[in-house]
Amino acid sequence: MKGRLRNFKTFHGIGNLFLFATVAAVIAVFAWLPFACSAENDLLKQAAQVFGPPLPRVMSSEKNPVTPEKVRLGKMLYYETRVSVDGTVSCFRCHPFGLYAADGLKKSIGNNSKVNPRNAPTILNAAGQIAAHWIGNRKDVEDQATQALVGPPSFGMPSYQAAENALKAIKGYPPLFQKAFPGDSNPVTAENFGKAVGAFERTLVTPSPFDAFLQGNGKALTDNQAQGLKTFMDTGCTACHSGTWVGGLSYQKFGIVEPYWKYTKSEKIDNGRFEVTKKEADKYVFKVPVLRNVERTAPYFHDGSVGRLGDAVWIMGKIQLGKDLTNEQRQSIVAFLSSLTGKIREDDLTIPVLPPSE
Amino acid sequence: MKGRLRNFKTFHGIGNLFLFATVAAVIAVFAWLPFACSAENDLLKQAAQVFGPPLPRVMSSEKNPVTPEKVRLGKMLYYETRVSVDGTVSCFRCHPFGLYAADGLKKSIGNNSKVNPRNAPTILNAAGQIAAHWIGNRKDVEDQATQALVGPPSFGMPSYQAAENALKAIKGYPPLFQKAFPGDSNPVTAENFGKAVGAFERTLVTPSPFDAFLQGNGKALTDNQAQGLKTFMDTGCTACHSGTWVGGLSYQKFGIVEPYWKYTKSEKIDNGRFEVTKKEADKYVFKVPVLRNVERTAPYFHDGSVGRLGDAVWIMGKIQLGKDLTNEQRQSIVAFLSSLTGKIREDDLTIPVLPPSE
Repeated sequence: MKGRLRNFKTFHGIGNLFLFATVAAVIAVFAWLPFACSAENDLLKQAAQVFGPPLPRVMSSEKNPVTPEKVRLGKMLYYETRVSVDGTVSCFRCHPFGLYAADGLKKSIGNNSKVNPRNAPTILNAAGQIAAHWIGNRKDVEDQATQALVGPPSFGMPSYQAAENALKAIKGYPPLFQKAFPGDSNPVTAENFGKAVGAFERTLVTPSPFDAFLQGNGKALTDNQAQGLKTFMDTGCTACHSGTWVGGLSYQKFGIVEPYWKYTKSEKIDNGRFEVTKKEADKYVFKVPVLRNVERTAPYFHDGSVGRLGDAVWIMGKIQLGKDLTNEQRQSIVAFLSSLTGKIREDDLTIPVLPPSE
Repeated sequence: MKGRLRNFKTFHGIGNLFLFATVAAVIAVFAWLPFACSAENDLLKQAAQVFGPPLPRVMSSEKNPVTPEKVRLGKMLYYETRVSVDGTVSCFRCHPFGLYAADGLKKSIGNNSKVNPRNAPTILNAAGQIAAHWIGNRKDVEDQATQALVGPPSFGMPSYQAAENALKAIKGYPPLFQKAFPGDSNPVTAENFGKAVGAFERTLVTPSPFDAFLQGNGKALTDNQAQGLKTFMDTGCTACHSGTWVGGLSYQKFGIVEPYWKYTKSEKIDNGRFEVTKKEADKYVFKVPVLRNVERTAPYFHDGSVGRLGDAVWIMGKIQLGKDLTNEQRQSIVAFLSSLTGKIREDDLTIPVLPPSE
């Protein structure tokens, strides 16, 4: 009986301790909650400042207003191989939607298996950037699409005239160009090809969990992703990868702290934007890439020389920021980047039937 | 007044004549109607005999039963370029749905811009044929898809093992293969690649106005098309182009009356099925092509040497039947062939998002 009593007392003592601990924990949680909420709010507030304005439905253009007629025609032309010199190249070849509108190759392969000078970035969420191509040698998506027609490693047509003739030879196209460009007396032009394709590409936005978060849904990101967002901002990645597209709005030297080719598996040194401006200051300068859907668009960098996203993140820390990111930091940032993977609209995953050749 | 009366009498006489003529016409029409209906019925009856059985929803196979899991996987693999040696070739490359699943080229261009030996026929309504490829050197669509993986001018992978490794390296695929082939302990094989792609292709049927006609809707064909059907049968085209697929069920010498290269713009003489059997009787023998959607799949013949359908029709009359078809006959047959242009199902025009590389 004594023993039982002692046991009971002991139990009672443990019980008291447990009760005390529970009460303390509850008090602590309630005391901490406002701070927690405030921390979440702070993250959201900071992110909204860094990544605003919110994702638009269409990446509009004053020079090329997006109309349904242009988009309809542009979507067809996006799949059109008959306007390439060997009949195998279309926009879709290097930007297939099944692979998030990138091709998975280090460098794209165009007509007659010619290798393009750089990696093909995704065309999703691409039209809002300062310019097109890695070194900014295309003004916008319209200019890119037009010049692709005669680009030697791209569609490879011998002249714009030849491309226009190829389009005119397909009887179904002239009426569609007429509808898309009602003011033009001669609407089937390479420039209008670019405008129609560009109008279609301006509709290709992919809302992601990160957008839901920015719009105030604190639960849209997992804890890992939210922590990763903090790491991404704290580390300094947002110095360049900011704005609606998480990049795409500035040029930057690739390798500020150390030369990039020390860490990438680059086969040759690319002078970058120097090729456009011939200014020494533009050596190894590239457009900061858009990071939306980056998880789905390996391999990475202008030459596709790095295959894994975690490696690319570490290299960026090392040579842009002089930081040797820990495995934890790098995984954390990769987790955040996964929140940028968006949903491709069903309509953008449908193939238009093209007009017949005869 | 006299004049008026005469006029009235004259009018009255004309009126009588008109009345008589109308009554006669009505009688004639009613008397003729049973004959007209009977003519239409006869055409329908004859056509149903020649072109039966009706279009199935799926081109089934005992060896490869079509299941939703196989179709789902096969549709993804149809767009998969990462299983080709240069990362640019998928089934879709030579069989894009926007061009009715043919590529518009004389001969398809595969990995590293290698030219295939023959023209790529559409894969729509293709799985019901006696064999695959123009010379029947592939047993069926499954065999075609499997062998394409290592075909030197096709996907060009160095071995089946290499193709399987490429598929296994994409982490999303093994679980999908497991679901599609639940009995297999090692489901990611080149053979199962072929079976999955084949299962998808077995669903690609395109119902056309001609099918509606065969099912008893006499108004599904225009008068020109109905007349063309009659011409098509009367001329003797149905000796080979018969059955549900309007061809695809037999081999035939191309050039029975005269050598084909006398009329086509062939760059070289193709021995045809002789390459498979080495029998002299199989020289210049090819599989009779399916004519469904033929209007949309120029250029024509095994070497794509003829660009216009009307020319192809005339050549066939000349060298297969020894008939010099008039312009009217040839246009009539082309009109009938246009009734074989079917509707590609919306679901077959959607692109699946593929599993990521990493």
